[in-house]
Amino acid sequence: MIDTLAQLLRQYAIVRAHSVALSVHLSDEDQCVQSMPDASPTKWHLAHTTWFFETLVLLPHVADYQPFDRQYAYLFNSYYEALGPRHPRLQRGLLSRPSIDEVHAYRNHVDQAILALSLTNNNQVAIDFEALLGPLELGLHHEQQHQELLLTDILHLFSCSPLLPAYHPSAQLPFQEQTPKQWLALPGGIVLIGHARSDPKQAGSEQPEFAFDNETPCHQRLLQPYQLASQLVTCGEYQDFIKAGGYNDPQWWLSDGWAAVQVLQWAAPAYWLAPGDPRRPSDAWQVFGLNGVHPLEAHAPVANISFFEASAYAEWAGSRLPTEFEWEAAFGTPGLSQMLDSVWQWTRSSYEPYPGFCPRAGDAREYNGKFMVGQQVLRGASLATPHNHSRSTYRNFFPPAARWQFSGLRLARDAA
Amino acid sequence: MIDTLAQLLRQYAIVRAHSVALSVHLSDEDQCVQSMPDASPTKWHLAHTTWFFETLVLLPHVADYQPFDRQYAYLFNSYYEALGPRHPRLQRGLLSRPSIDEVHAYRNHVDQAILALSLTNNNQVAIDFEALLGPLELGLHHEQQHQELLLTDILHLFSCSPLLPAYHPSAQLPFQEQTPKQWLALPGGIVLIGHARSDPKQAGSEQPEFAFDNETPCHQRLLQPYQLASQLVTCGEYQDFIKAGGYNDPQWWLSDGWAAVQVLQWAAPAYWLAPGDPRRPSDAWQVFGLNGVHPLEAHAPVANISFFEASAYAEWAGSRLPTEFEWEAAFGTPGLSQMLDSVWQWTRSSYEPYPGFCPRAGDAREYNGKFMVGQQVLRGASLATPHNHSRSTYRNFFPPAARWQFSGLRLARDAA
Amino acid sequence: MIDTLAQLLRQYAIVRAHSVALSVHLSDEDQCVQSMPDASPTKWHLAHTTWFFETLVLLPHVADYQPFDRQYAYLFNSYYEALGPRHPRLQRGLLSRPSIDEVHAYRNHVDQAILALSLTNNNQVAIDFEALLGPLELGLHHEQQHQELLLTDILHLFSCSPLLPAYHPSAQLPFQEQTPKQWLALPGGIVLIGHARSDPKQAGSEQPEFAFDNETPCHQRLLQPYQLASQLVTCGEYQDFIKAGGYNDPQWWLSDGWAAVQVLQWAAPAYWLAPGDPRRPSDAWQVFGLNGVHPLEAHAPVANISFFEASAYAEWAGSRLPTEFEWEAAFGTPGLSQMLDSVWQWTRSSYEPYPGFCPRAGDAREYNGKFMVGQQVLRGASLATPHNHSRSTYRNFFPPAARWQFSGLRLARDAA
Amino acid sequence: MIDTLAQLLRQYAIVRAHSVALSVHLSDEDQCVQSMPDASPTKWHLAHTTWFFETLVLLPHVADYQPFDRQYAYLFNSYYEALGPRHPRLQRGLLSRPSIDEVHAYRNHVDQAILALSLTNNNQVAIDFEALLGPLELGLHHEQQHQELLLTDILHLFSCSPLLPAYHPSAQLPFQEQTPKQWLALPGGIVLIGHARSDPKQAGSEQPEFAFDNETPCHQRLLQPYQLASQLVTCGEYQDFIKAGGYNDPQWWLSDGWAAVQVLQWAAPAYWLAPGDPRRPSDAWQVFGLNGVHPLEAHAPVANISFFEASAYAEWAGSRLPTEFEWEAAFGTPGLSQMLDSVWQWTRSSYEPYPGFCPRAGDAREYNGKFMVGQQVLRGASLATPHNHSRSTYRNFFPPAARWQFSGLRLARDAA
Repeated sequence: MIDTLAQLLRQYAIVRAHSVALSVHLSDEDQCVQSMPDASPTKWHLAHTTWFFETLVLLPHVADYQPFDRQYAYLFNSYYEALGPRHPRLQRGLLSRPSIDEVHAYRNHVDQAILALSLTNNNQVAIDFEALLGPLELGLHHEQQHQELLLTDILHLFSCSPLLPAYHPSAQLPFQEQTPKQWLALPGGIVLIGHARSDPKQAGSEQPEFAFDNETPCHQRLLQPYQLASQLVTCGEYQDFIKAGGYNDPQWWLSDGWAAVQVLQWAAPAYWLAPGDPRRPSDAWQVFGLNGVHPLEAHAPVANISFFEASAYAEWAGSRLPTEFEWEAAFGTPGLSQMLDSVWQWTRSSYEPYPGFCPRAGDAREYNGKFMVGQQVLRGASLATPHNHSRSTYRNFFPPAARWQFSGLRLARDAA
Repeated sequence: MIDTLAQLLRQYAIVRAHSVALSVHLSDEDQCVQSMPDASPTKWHLAHTTWFFETLVLLPHVADYQPFDRQYAYLFNSYYEALGPRHPRLQRGLLSRPSIDEVHAYRNHVDQAILALSLTNNNQVAIDFEALLGPLELGLHHEQQHQELLLTDILHLFSCSPLLPAYHPSAQLPFQEQTPKQWLALPGGIVLIGHARSDPKQAGSEQPEFAFDNETPCHQRLLQPYQLASQLVTCGEYQDFIKAGGYNDPQWWLSDGWAAVQVLQWAAPAYWLAPGDPRRPSDAWQVFGLNGVHPLEAHAPVANISFFEASAYAEWAGSRLPTEFEWEAAFGTPGLSQMLDSVWQWTRSSYEPYPGFCPRAGDAREYNGKFMVGQQVLRGASLATPHNHSRSTYRNFFPPAARWQFSGLRLARDAA
Repeated sequence: MIDTLAQLLRQYAIVRAHSVALSVHLSDEDQCVQSMPDASPTKWHLAHTTWFFETLVLLPHVADYQPFDRQYAYLFNSYYEALGPRHPRLQRGLLSRPSIDEVHAYRNHVDQAILALSLTNNNQVAIDFEALLGPLELGLHHEQQHQELLLTDILHLFSCSPLLPAYHPSAQLPFQEQTPKQWLALPGGIVLIGHARSDPKQAGSEQPEFAFDNETPCHQRLLQPYQLASQLVTCGEYQDFIKAGGYNDPQWWLSDGWAAVQVLQWAAPAYWLAPGDPRRPSDAWQVFGLNGVHPLEAHAPVANISFFEASAYAEWAGSRLPTEFEWEAAFGTPGLSQMLDSVWQWTRSSYEPYPGFCPRAGDAREYNGKFMVGQQVLRGASLATPHNHSRSTYRNFFPPAARWQFSGLRLARDAA
Repeated sequence: MIDTLAQLLRQYAIVRAHSVALSVHLSDEDQCVQSMPDASPTKWHLAHTTWFFETLVLLPHVADYQPFDRQYAYLFNSYYEALGPRHPRLQRGLLSRPSIDEVHAYRNHVDQAILALSLTNNNQVAIDFEALLGPLELGLHHEQQHQELLLTDILHLFSCSPLLPAYHPSAQLPFQEQTPKQWLALPGGIVLIGHARSDPKQAGSEQPEFAFDNETPCHQRLLQPYQLASQLVTCGEYQDFIKAGGYNDPQWWLSDGWAAVQVLQWAAPAYWLAPGDPRRPSDAWQVFGLNGVHPLEAHAPVANISFFEASAYAEWAGSRLPTEFEWEAAFGTPGLSQMLDSVWQWTRSSYEPYPGFCPRAGDAREYNGKFMVGQQVLRGASLATPHNHSRSTYRNFFPPAARWQFSGLRLARDAA
């Protein structure tokens, strides 16, 4: 167990440093603003992830821990009803105080307390090591999730500015030319879905890797034979949909999707600039990303589309979206590329509990389960996902109209 | 085929007469008002169902049919994008014209044209009998769905009136005393789900009964062993949840459900009158239904609750909602009662396409498929469902916050 | 005083009958619907005006009066906080019950009780005649106000229907050809404004005519010399404003007016049909009125415009709107036409209390005074105003964006 | 004229420095956030006032002026339709870029160009001195208005924080104990209202001081005799209104005011903390101001109330609000105190054009006139008003529900 603690503390140092590293390109002001209700300020992400460690690891399990500031429990609780009242989500951007310097001081305070755990195992302080390992590990994966949100949220903020500033000139790497797309045939049948962590025997592993509770239990599903595209849908392919009038024809759209197109006046993915956009005049389509405005790359996977758009594109293309189970069962199939990079992939699956699902015990009970309605599952990972954070069983989820994530699609179809 | 036509026309007469029969207790004014965006006026239901036959049966398939009024195509189209523009849903209640008498004349005009089909099979009029049988049958089931909506919509309207008028004094029959609730054990395994109509060979039937496209194709699912309550949750049991503070404790609620409780100030099912309600002073809880206000019956199934409330109750009761597949697989199990009467039963399943789902061809393509996101499936039927309308494979669906349907719940749990 | 009672009762019979007469062209359904928050159903108008007599005349002053239905106090109170809780304004259209027949029975019940006052002055019933004359007279003028609203509200309802039904084919008389418009010079100076009723000595009249409290006290104002147009702005003149791009140029508009133009997409007066309107295809502009759709008449006064539009037109025309004091002071000037007919005339005056203003005593205290903020005064009368209802001191008022009244404008300018 | 330029440039240096001085207590983050649609970030105020000089003084009148950044014309235009499109008001808080340092650079750039005007009068650069004096002077008064808004906006922002930070510990000085309140009798009659600047002969002054166009023309009004309270209504007096149930009794309120009380749940002035407020537990009422939270001072003038509250208080106190003309005519009366300090004073006057009003010529035409509807006039000045900015003829204006200004009231009543 002490070995595990040491491992986790090494990871802790790396993860925590990475959050700060992501923020160094941003001014205090950039880190303070909330650009829409779904997004949060960078500063809030930095503080909230710290609050998570303070509240779920230090306060319950380290007897002599002194909280940095008792008001932060109110300011930086996100949605944990059981952990008391909290600052309204819509007003996170009003928190010009505490300053970013104070938030860094908060981070340091908590980091020191966490890292000191390695020194205290022989002394008299009452620390329940057994109990804190789980929350500590969870906190690391939690912080990685916020690292991705930090990037998608800052991109949304910058997209609201007529200046369209770049987060970092080299933030978004060009995509490599792909081999031609193929349909890969998958047999279906009874497949194993989900993560085996909850049942180490099943997984046949002494040290199962981490998984969120929503990936468990590992269970059997019965699939029909199906086919999956070897690659993601590209910007060039998506342009064809636009050119064919896809945004003007209700026949391709789910009813709620068509309503969104009309009310929100969607005519292209979220950060695409049509030719002639006054902010960056050009004769051709351009895309705004973390590296600023650049010409649309036909071979890059389309990103920043909603589930509604993914579904409409698939209809138009005579295909469909895969279920999350089809996606997971196909993982590892030779020829299947772009599975854990590039963009999250919308699936046709609603976000529901797996059979036998049981939320994590304790304060993190509210982490995943209470959101299991009204959202769609995305699988994979994106260019903004921290290294080693995702995996084949990982279930990301967002409402069907969300477009500010790096979300695209892969086509599926029934076996011929 | 001509036999089938004759059968359908007999049914037609019965179904059409039933819609009118449901409206005779209502004044012209009662039939004109729209009480909320989700509900429609009785008059609109009477006209829209007629429009359905006119537009999907008569106009495309009966060469010499003369429409009653060309403006009705605009007024009474509900949501069929492919069939042209339409009156805004939110303004259905503004249609004081056409009058209810004109709507009855419209119904008669269409009824005569439909019923005349039995006389015309020998003459020269160009009628494509083969092609119209499907839409004609669909129109009957469509009208039955609106018969239920007519009742739930009028109940909602009356619930908005301080007078709380009764639709009909004998409309809502008392529920019979039930035998004690039991947990029935179901084995799971590979089960057949969905309606076999699309594949007669599979069903082994020459004359498969009607099913909506969303019930097809019939396919296999793999279920874990589970248990299902023999009966529905009762008003008395639900009162215990209220008394235990269920509406004040976020731990039982999905996140969106808890938000609904707070914003919409839910404290009981939709039509319950708390003791002391100024509209009908009483010392005890009362319930408003189609037969007016009556004392709460502890043994009656709880109704008019949202998916969010059903889910919260199940959590509080240490159980869960069944999936729609568990519900269907258990159908017919000895001891399982209240399956196709009383109230619709919320399931834990999002409304999604079955594997291989293909929308109905033609103008009715938009009937079901385009709503397959953001809604929850309900199984069963209710006291307001027309006789013989539902079946074991029937999939009803509503948004998770909807409460104006006769919707309740049955508990499930994993096998011990 | 008994003479006055007899006079009032004669008027009562006439006014009450007129309300019913206005409703006979309408079906029960027409009378039930509420087309927007500002408008009320005909049935509600018929009931509310009856409630006014019951609540302000009968219940407080006629000892043995039995109310028709005690629930009506809740249903038909409009905005009198002191008279108890009331049905929400936004839900007046949900009252399919009581039926229109019941409302007529209510009217008869109250009419009989009021008209019986003439018979009861010699008997023993305790009636405070002195005290009821004022409310009785107020009730008549109140009902006349609702007669105009009944017409403007039903016109709004019918304008929401794609059928554009006519209230009555002869409802809206053509306007007579006018003599050429002239600028009339008015001297200004100290003028007497307001109605002298509150101070009979000042008016030199033993039987001063009725006035609302907001027209009093009569007081002096000091005006600069000014000019007033002899006639109202016509539809033809207003068309020139449209053709000149008036709705596309912010320079003519008050800031809130320009916002309304953009948000509400105003491009013409409320009930104008542009050439090509799909509801009534035509090559020319048409106007929808109480008599249905008819060609725009260039010489008719423009109507159904907001204060914002009136103000923008005046700016564009190099003029301005008159203040309500300029309007009143000019009343009776030879050559000044269309003062108490055709359309209400927006003034540049906010609706404010006159110096020394004191609301009417008693339950009618809330009649006028509490609305004296955020509204603009209109002077004159319209084709929908009951005969003899308005006068030179009459102050009508509506929010600056209101367009469903018969509201137009007369130009003014400073003396050269 | 050159003397005038020199004078203006001296003022310029002072005014511009003061804006910066007001911001030095604030972090970059404090200066970036927009706490509600009515408020603007400090940084935006600093940039917008600079844009005003650049756009109205430098660009049109100084031939070789090079703008700092052409995109700022879009970012920092407030509401001048004639000056082109602009960043949406609601999104001012999203402008994390340009940074506060860039805004200071922008200020410096414009300051140097303006101050260089003193050096350039002998050289060849084409500068239209005559034409720029007016806009230059206007720009100074404009910037002073924003200095007050900067303070009221930052106070609103800080009021949204659970931390309730102080802008500056000595920002809000305690009020001096006042002599007992008296009613001062004013004679009324014909009085001169407005500023004589537009007509120097009338004012008998060769160098009339500055006035905004809305204060002109100077004109005669006829007033009834009236009485004015010698002092402002105090917090102690306002507490009596609260204790007497003033916020729970509709009889004191204008109709729109009562609606605001209920919808916005007003129960005290904007920044009052009731005893027991969780942010700063205390047994007594406290007030949050620029100097942070402090105990309520009974003798201090009540502030941060809306027109609706001022009106309700006056009704409850058996008095009324003065008209803006009564206020101005009384100015200078011996015994009348707190006229140009402490708090702005709501009047009973709607914000309307004076007789003969003509907006300022040129680009500043939109400065005042287009807002003359739907707002109430406030007279006086407040503790946040820059020294020498206000005067007896000054007309401030805000919507009747606005509470974030330092706005209070003085009572008036009709002469006995």
